[in-house]
Amino acid sequence: LPSDLFSATYERGDAVAAVNAEAWLQALLDVEAALARACATEGLIPEEAQNAITAACASAADFDLVAIAAEAGDHATPVVPLVRILRERVGPDNGRYVHVGATSQDIVDTAAMLVAKRALTSVLADARAAADACAGLAERHRQTAVAGRTLLQQALPTSFGLVAAQWLTAIAAPLGGLEGMRSWALAVQMGGPVGSRSPAVADQVADYLDLAAPRMPWHTDRTRVVALAATLGMLGGSLGKIARDVTLFAQTEVGELSEGGEGRGGSSAMAHKHNPVAAVSVLACSKRLPGLVATMLAAMEQEHERAAGAWQAEWGTLTQILTLTGSAAAWSRDLLENLEVDVDRMRANLGSLAEAGVADAASPEQHLSGALELIDRALKDYRG
Amino acid sequence: LPSDLFSATYERGDAVAAVNAEAWLQALLDVEAALARACATEGLIPEEAQNAITAACASAADFDLVAIAAEAGDHATPVVPLVRILRERVGPDNGRYVHVGATSQDIVDTAAMLVAKRALTSVLADARAAADACAGLAERHRQTAVAGRTLLQQALPTSFGLVAAQWLTAIAAPLGGLEGMRSWALAVQMGGPVGSRSPAVADQVADYLDLAAPRMPWHTDRTRVVALAATLGMLGGSLGKIARDVTLFAQTEVGELSEGGEGRGGSSAMAHKHNPVAAVSVLACSKRLPGLVATMLAAMEQEHERAAGAWQAEWGTLTQILTLTGSAAAWSRDLLENLEVDVDRMRANLGSLAEAGVADAASPEQHLSGALELIDRALKDYRG
Amino acid sequence: LPSDLFSATYERGDAVAAVNAEAWLQALLDVEAALARACATEGLIPEEAQNAITAACASAADFDLVAIAAEAGDHATPVVPLVRILRERVGPDNGRYVHVGATSQDIVDTAAMLVAKRALTSVLADARAAADACAGLAERHRQTAVAGRTLLQQALPTSFGLVAAQWLTAIAAPLGGLEGMRSWALAVQMGGPVGSRSPAVADQVADYLDLAAPRMPWHTDRTRVVALAATLGMLGGSLGKIARDVTLFAQTEVGELSEGGEGRGGSSAMAHKHNPVAAVSVLACSKRLPGLVATMLAAMEQEHERAAGAWQAEWGTLTQILTLTGSAAAWSRDLLENLEVDVDRMRANLGSLAEAGVADAASPEQHLSGALELIDRALKDYRG
Amino acid sequence: LPSDLFSATYERGDAVAAVNAEAWLQALLDVEAALARACATEGLIPEEAQNAITAACASAADFDLVAIAAEAGDHATPVVPLVRILRERVGPDNGRYVHVGATSQDIVDTAAMLVAKRALTSVLADARAAADACAGLAERHRQTAVAGRTLLQQALPTSFGLVAAQWLTAIAAPLGGLEGMRSWALAVQMGGPVGSRSPAVADQVADYLDLAAPRMPWHTDRTRVVALAATLGMLGGSLGKIARDVTLFAQTEVGELSEGGEGRGGSSAMAHKHNPVAAVSVLACSKRLPGLVATMLAAMEQEHERAAGAWQAEWGTLTQILTLTGSAAAWSRDLLENLEVDVDRMRANLGSLAEAGVADAASPEQHLSGALELIDRALKDYRG
Repeated sequence: LPSDLFSATYERGDAVAAVNAEAWLQALLDVEAALARACATEGLIPEEAQNAITAACASAADFDLVAIAAEAGDHATPVVPLVRILRERVGPDNGRYVHVGATSQDIVDTAAMLVAKRALTSVLADARAAADACAGLAERHRQTAVAGRTLLQQALPTSFGLVAAQWLTAIAAPLGGLEGMRSWALAVQMGGPVGSRSPAVADQVADYLDLAAPRMPWHTDRTRVVALAATLGMLGGSLGKIARDVTLFAQTEVGELSEGGEGRGGSSAMAHKHNPVAAVSVLACSKRLPGLVATMLAAMEQEHERAAGAWQAEWGTLTQILTLTGSAAAWSRDLLENLEVDVDRMRANLGSLAEAGVADAASPEQHLSGALELIDRALKDYRG
Repeated sequence: LPSDLFSATYERGDAVAAVNAEAWLQALLDVEAALARACATEGLIPEEAQNAITAACASAADFDLVAIAAEAGDHATPVVPLVRILRERVGPDNGRYVHVGATSQDIVDTAAMLVAKRALTSVLADARAAADACAGLAERHRQTAVAGRTLLQQALPTSFGLVAAQWLTAIAAPLGGLEGMRSWALAVQMGGPVGSRSPAVADQVADYLDLAAPRMPWHTDRTRVVALAATLGMLGGSLGKIARDVTLFAQTEVGELSEGGEGRGGSSAMAHKHNPVAAVSVLACSKRLPGLVATMLAAMEQEHERAAGAWQAEWGTLTQILTLTGSAAAWSRDLLENLEVDVDRMRANLGSLAEAGVADAASPEQHLSGALELIDRALKDYRG
Repeated sequence: LPSDLFSATYERGDAVAAVNAEAWLQALLDVEAALARACATEGLIPEEAQNAITAACASAADFDLVAIAAEAGDHATPVVPLVRILRERVGPDNGRYVHVGATSQDIVDTAAMLVAKRALTSVLADARAAADACAGLAERHRQTAVAGRTLLQQALPTSFGLVAAQWLTAIAAPLGGLEGMRSWALAVQMGGPVGSRSPAVADQVADYLDLAAPRMPWHTDRTRVVALAATLGMLGGSLGKIARDVTLFAQTEVGELSEGGEGRGGSSAMAHKHNPVAAVSVLACSKRLPGLVATMLAAMEQEHERAAGAWQAEWGTLTQILTLTGSAAAWSRDLLENLEVDVDRMRANLGSLAEAGVADAASPEQHLSGALELIDRALKDYRG
Repeated sequence: LPSDLFSATYERGDAVAAVNAEAWLQALLDVEAALARACATEGLIPEEAQNAITAACASAADFDLVAIAAEAGDHATPVVPLVRILRERVGPDNGRYVHVGATSQDIVDTAAMLVAKRALTSVLADARAAADACAGLAERHRQTAVAGRTLLQQALPTSFGLVAAQWLTAIAAPLGGLEGMRSWALAVQMGGPVGSRSPAVADQVADYLDLAAPRMPWHTDRTRVVALAATLGMLGGSLGKIARDVTLFAQTEVGELSEGGEGRGGSSAMAHKHNPVAAVSVLACSKRLPGLVATMLAAMEQEHERAAGAWQAEWGTLTQILTLTGSAAAWSRDLLENLEVDVDRMRANLGSLAEAGVADAASPEQHLSGALELIDRALKDYRG
């Protein structure tokens, strides 16, 4: 069952599959397995125990997710029941080597970073495709004159290619930021009960999971997760800007852009309408992000070595941020790859500027040199 | 499957069952059925059509929720596929009488209010039980001296009964606010495509669904949903305040309160610990609410007769607010009904005030007359 | 000096004068004076002391605001220096009767409510004038056909009078809510150091200051201030909705509304432009409110009998909320009282609907009966 | 006059002087001067005009700030009156060379970046001093045993030096982020009315103002200002975490840390109290930041080439974010430079863990090797 009747709006694309309950459980298992490997490498547990533990952690499908989720409530963490079950499965001899030296936050935080890393693969792929589509529009419409509009008033002619190039730039910045996250923000947590564990095991776990090895445990230093959340929020903000522009360009009275895509945009009551469904869906997601990022920021005030409430508020919030940004990116890709540009209408709409005596509006194509220079810059920057 | 590995934390209590995908679908069906009844009453559709439509709308279990949710994406609303299916089911003669004069927002907004009304039943029951537990504590601990603490410093003695009475008052205000919502905020929407439909049908639908009949359609006047969201956020804030106090009272060095409840609060790494799991869970929920309420407020900026994005951002946000407030209430009820009070430790901890020369601290019981007067006021107010 | 180079945008109207530093100081003095009167009435201090204290508290202009504000930093409250100065001014005999039984939060919280009450006078006056202007538009434009627009697409014709009536309704709800605040939310705080003071003095102070007498001290029960903040936020949200509509109606390609007002809206670079300055200014204010309301909600988690940080975060936030809502109301009044309606353009823009074969669009005036009924309802409701 | 009776809490340190009305006006003038220089360099205006303009822009003190702020309201920007005044001052011949090719947003955005750059100097200096103080504590208290506390319960012993080292790390990350802003986020805006101006002038202006030269105009691509805001919010979050810890360590029942500083922390009603004023003040600021950052994120949805409302909402919000983060940093520096550590109390409080049978608690110093390794890492990382 979908978690939500509105999942097609909020959960488009592949990010959601990387953050659902089963994906979280798999990530927890992957962390316990990596911990066992690291402990074996460091000589803290026998090789045999490691083998038993990694085998037991292989697949979330072997676990009763409903039971674990229910029991998690008694401990405010799913790690307590999970460790108990793992110990049962590997038997009494190996059981004592499960979860060695770790605290539940080590497992949950590292799993969160794995979940994020996996979800980011989809988010980034869709965002990059959206950016590519902008680059294509910028290139194709270098010479397409369109009214530049400020405060929703026609101001002066510009190039629609420049509009698209600026969309591209607005996506490219957070995209670059998110790619940079892998080297530091997506880090292992393995500090032990009060964050004082020697870092050797953490360094190994990082290696096995392809996550960053932090200089210090970060149980209550939440700069990493907040940086991730804020950069995702920023990507959502840029995608929302583009979608807002599309809804404005697509107004009946403007008619310069419309959404392609077959069978989409019908109304339950009005056959003549063609609704900008993809743009609306991007905005339905992007508008939910600022409040969620604020929750993450407010949750930075975490007490001592483990917070009572603020940390636990992050789990669902980060999951939502990844889902909604992923959905906004998937919808944006769809929107931009299928966007239909009415070049004639763009030209015709400049008429009122010409009537108002704006010289450039009569022959706008002759005034685009600055725009062309900027488009070339943007494309060169993006394509490297 | 739980929608979330952390559902025991975020989705405790019965509110979640009133807001899940199936409950939303049932609410949509209930609205279409009520619309058919109202249209028949007003003579707009034949009685036979009404019977066919209400029969078809009887149970969400008869519908393929996954397919509807998927198709909803093409229209940014699940109403388009739902109406199509209903028309198919009632046959060509009756089909034209489905959804008469309505727009998809009519159905979704009214369904949202039904969903909210149903979820509120659980939220209010748990919040009221939490308040009852506070009243019991206030009564039992009228004479229990405890340090009043300001800026986390001991200030002067007070009565623990007064502490509980103030918790009670903080819950009672939003509780009253939510009960008042039923008469105006939980209103029918039935304004038709551009909000200009004559109100007769809306008034009937309100009657059938036991919702308020609005003076005007409110497609882009979102004061109702925002009032609901903000008052839920306020309840969450009061519950968070209580939970924060409990975590502070339960500190190892203070030890004046602890959570009861068997088998709860164990640590994955430290057998000697007893964690305040219920309080932490309340806070995990309450800390997520302010950002969500901000999203609802920001979404008030809705264009013309139907917003492109801001309205669609509400659905998931309101669902989350109801779920999280319900969970906070259920956890709070559990917390307060099982709270263990260490009266001796409260008295002993006043020692440092007495040492500091605070006269009242030596015989605090003799200085509680103001507190007793206030406790009596609070109890009388609450119990009416 | 203005506190802000952008004060004309953010601080229009009279609310700002009710919340500035001097107004806050005067409110603190008014509370100390009312406390002295109440203590004298209750026989707790001599009449002579009361006279001296109320005389000393008469005017904020007699105090060195800069010095008090500076010294406030050492105590995280301006009340400590203020009480010291008051004691000096009334002399050693009367000095001990200053601030009797009160704590600094009593004074600051009660002053906050006085400040809010005074600011609300302006906010409500401007909001009511804006609502009156909407009522006037609704009446004058009952029969003015305009395109109803959903998802920024023309949908069906409606009446511009109905558009204005719905603006009216969206303002009237929070307006009513704010008027209702006076009877409970705008309450005295006079609970003493740990909130256990007998309520007799508080009741008197409430009487003198024309504020509500709370059943209980509310030092860490912040439902009152949050209800106030959220309802102001809701008013801001409704005003933002109207302003957004105006910017859309005023687009070059739509041209159905424009802002009146002489000498306004010029551009620094483009002589032909006429910018919707008032609408933009409303939005500049309204968009700042959701985050501020979230801060107030998040700050409800207040520890024990006085919070360490969350309470102190409220002061500036509430001040800003009052200022920005007041400014949004003042700008909205200006916007709506001077709005210019181009009835011909509204009619002409319906042409595309008619071309699309929408039957109502050819003779829209014949399809407004529902709209007229709703307009009448709204006007009757508002005018009572 | 202080803008705020609570300025000592919210506006400590030097950042506020870099963001007040006069500083903003000076920044606007600096941008107009730099534009004139760049235009002269590019041969667009005569050298003589450049000299006259830069002379006229030398000092904000020569301008009637109150009049400019008032007139700004008519245009939703202070640039319109400022340009008019500058043109008057340089005379009719040079007047036409003022503001050449620029739009008001060019001037305001570039000025915002100048204001931010100047404010950051103070913010970073105070934050770095706070980090230095943490480093000092980490070094001095390597061997100081203290209870590690999770969910506000004593868990296991750790080193107070490690606590301080983790504070250090939490400050260092956003500090590094802010230092990195100079090379890209703090960029010139000089795109002209619709963002299509050839970049040559922008590159020159960047050079003169020591700001980054953007690849593209960013009138409605707000990733830069949001990255700045979010990173400031993150710094505030880390400082809030430290301050929260201090209030907990300073509780009467814990007593392990106290604030130094003479004459601070007195109560208006209770002589025996010593309030953690600096920590409370940090929190009063840090708690206001998440909502403000959310406002900036929500404001990313900016229409076309200049937003109607969302951009104008940024000005006051960014100003507040800089002020409050600066104040939090200044208060944190004070807090951490004067922090008093009660080593004996830390040791004594471990008694309850020892009683609970936690082996390490009896001789905690023997179990700090991991902590020492981590402290060394953190110090080495920070000191390079």
